[in-house]
Amino acid sequence: MKTIKLNKRPVGTPQLSDFKLETEEKPQIKAGEMLLKATYISVDPYLRGRMSDAKSYIAPFELNKAMSSGMIAEVLESNLDNFSKGDFVSGMLEWKEYQSSNGEGLIKVDAHQAPLSAYLGVLGMTGLTAYLGLTEIGKPKAGETVVVSGAAGAVGSIVGQIAKLLGCRVVGIAGSDEKVEQLKSEYAFDEAINYNSTTNMSQAIADACPNGVDVYFDNVGGEISDAVMLNVNRFARIIVCGAISLYNETSVPMGPRVQPILIKNSVLMQGFIVSNYMEKFAEAVPQLAQWLGEGKLKFTETVVEGFENTPQAFIDLFEGKNKGKMIVKI
Amino acid sequence: MKTIKLNKRPVGTPQLSDFKLETEEKPQIKAGEMLLKATYISVDPYLRGRMSDAKSYIAPFELNKAMSSGMIAEVLESNLDNFSKGDFVSGMLEWKEYQSSNGEGLIKVDAHQAPLSAYLGVLGMTGLTAYLGLTEIGKPKAGETVVVSGAAGAVGSIVGQIAKLLGCRVVGIAGSDEKVEQLKSEYAFDEAINYNSTTNMSQAIADACPNGVDVYFDNVGGEISDAVMLNVNRFARIIVCGAISLYNETSVPMGPRVQPILIKNSVLMQGFIVSNYMEKFAEAVPQLAQWLGEGKLKFTETVVEGFENTPQAFIDLFEGKNKGKMIVKI
Repeated sequence: MKTIKLNKRPVGTPQLSDFKLETEEKPQIKAGEMLLKATYISVDPYLRGRMSDAKSYIAPFELNKAMSSGMIAEVLESNLDNFSKGDFVSGMLEWKEYQSSNGEGLIKVDAHQAPLSAYLGVLGMTGLTAYLGLTEIGKPKAGETVVVSGAAGAVGSIVGQIAKLLGCRVVGIAGSDEKVEQLKSEYAFDEAINYNSTTNMSQAIADACPNGVDVYFDNVGGEISDAVMLNVNRFARIIVCGAISLYNETSVPMGPRVQPILIKNSVLMQGFIVSNYMEKFAEAVPQLAQWLGEGKLKFTETVVEGFENTPQAFIDLFEGKNKGKMIVKI
Repeated sequence: MKTIKLNKRPVGTPQLSDFKLETEEKPQIKAGEMLLKATYISVDPYLRGRMSDAKSYIAPFELNKAMSSGMIAEVLESNLDNFSKGDFVSGMLEWKEYQSSNGEGLIKVDAHQAPLSAYLGVLGMTGLTAYLGLTEIGKPKAGETVVVSGAAGAVGSIVGQIAKLLGCRVVGIAGSDEKVEQLKSEYAFDEAINYNSTTNMSQAIADACPNGVDVYFDNVGGEISDAVMLNVNRFARIIVCGAISLYNETSVPMGPRVQPILIKNSVLMQGFIVSNYMEKFAEAVPQLAQWLGEGKLKFTETVVEGFENTPQAFIDLFEGKNKGKMIVKI
């Protein structure tokens, strides 16, 4: 069986050579364990942070050990009471075709309720990040203007749709005309801006937000966020969820200082990590599932086939090659 | 009678030539008015923002019109029921030796309860800023570490003392050995750092905060704040109250981007303006007065004599020539 390990810590943008594909013995399970076969692997920008050894909220990956991320797996054999052969589970698992598990941290998912991959996306970490980041920090009120960057990505596309469901004006920022078109036609964003074809982003945001920006859901950081900051209203809330434009920087990224804007406009800016809000998952998941079931929440997936293509799928995130959730199907 | 007007909008650090001293007719009061004589004028860093015409939370001063700020004045004559000759009032007033007022926005202050100037400081905007910024945004818990910059200033020195009263470890950052000594001996700060004699501020903060920084009350912005940011704990709260190091910049100040730190540590950063918290004043003022009465809250004033010296007193703030609250006595 195959496994993908961290070969080197990336300098700048991750390269294929930072990973290595190895062959290992398929595990035998013992009492209190089950045997899992990987079905779907989620690749997410935040994994870039774990590939470095800087101190962070989550331990770095170890060199020469398997990478891990959110995955869906099928139970092939089980010595556990609460998991049976044929079940599908979701949770943090290793990038291995087969692995044993004692079931800790895994939840069963129902392939009849939603497509299995959705449990990595709209019904999983992605959807929870969008919903809880928006509602717990952004606290948008009907009629307010919500701007989201990385808007065509996994989290951003859900954020925008939820903000619409909450009665807000929603403006998305994305990197191609095709994505902009999708945001407006499929996801019903009020406006969308292609940052790759816009020279004056601050003006474009001002034009798209005639009443200013009340909530900014930031997935990207960098110059796009600088432009949004120039348009924030008094008492604006900024959910600092991701900074994909900065993850591959090799020196400390510099930019305009935010303090004067925060003071002038009494702005709140808060770093968001979904795992801080675990106590809210039990109410959030049914809400997301209900919207999904009612057809009010749509999702897009970019599905890459083949276990060995997981590193390339991850690398492609940084070029925005995905629309919606990037997933590897095994 | 004399008045001080805005002569020019400052470029960079304010100069005396940005102000002009003029002579005007002493006003005659009408029905529904009282005649006030200026007693104390508060000069505060935030006034720098009002001297520019950039959009902000408060309207800019108008050219060729009197400046204004927090002041204490004596009632010389009154046609109002609720103010009598001999009363002292506090509120936003114009930089004029004499002025008429209809009483709106003014409160009576009691010279027997505290020295009159204290109503501009610890019992006024300064004390309210310190107390409400710290408690409403910082929410310090006993045992946590609170760092305050501009620590020997009007707001900072109160912040540190209140944080001590709330059971925190308190570390101050100030600009001279004399101020550092005062913070430790008079105000009982646990540690204090002279940024002018420290080459590695980040290391100095790490040394002074062995358990990291939970709350940062930021009065200064700039490189001092960059150094504090490198030491914040998970779930740290940053009160962005002032950015005196940036107010006189003539171009957009640049610095390390904060987003990666906010994400990694789930940090909250929020711009604070005391007037947003008016509904809390009624509970905050008695608390401050109680601590003051019990001798638990000390305050320092730098008192400049003479109405015409108000612009110089204001300019001196940016060189840190004040200890504690800078006040002009007329």
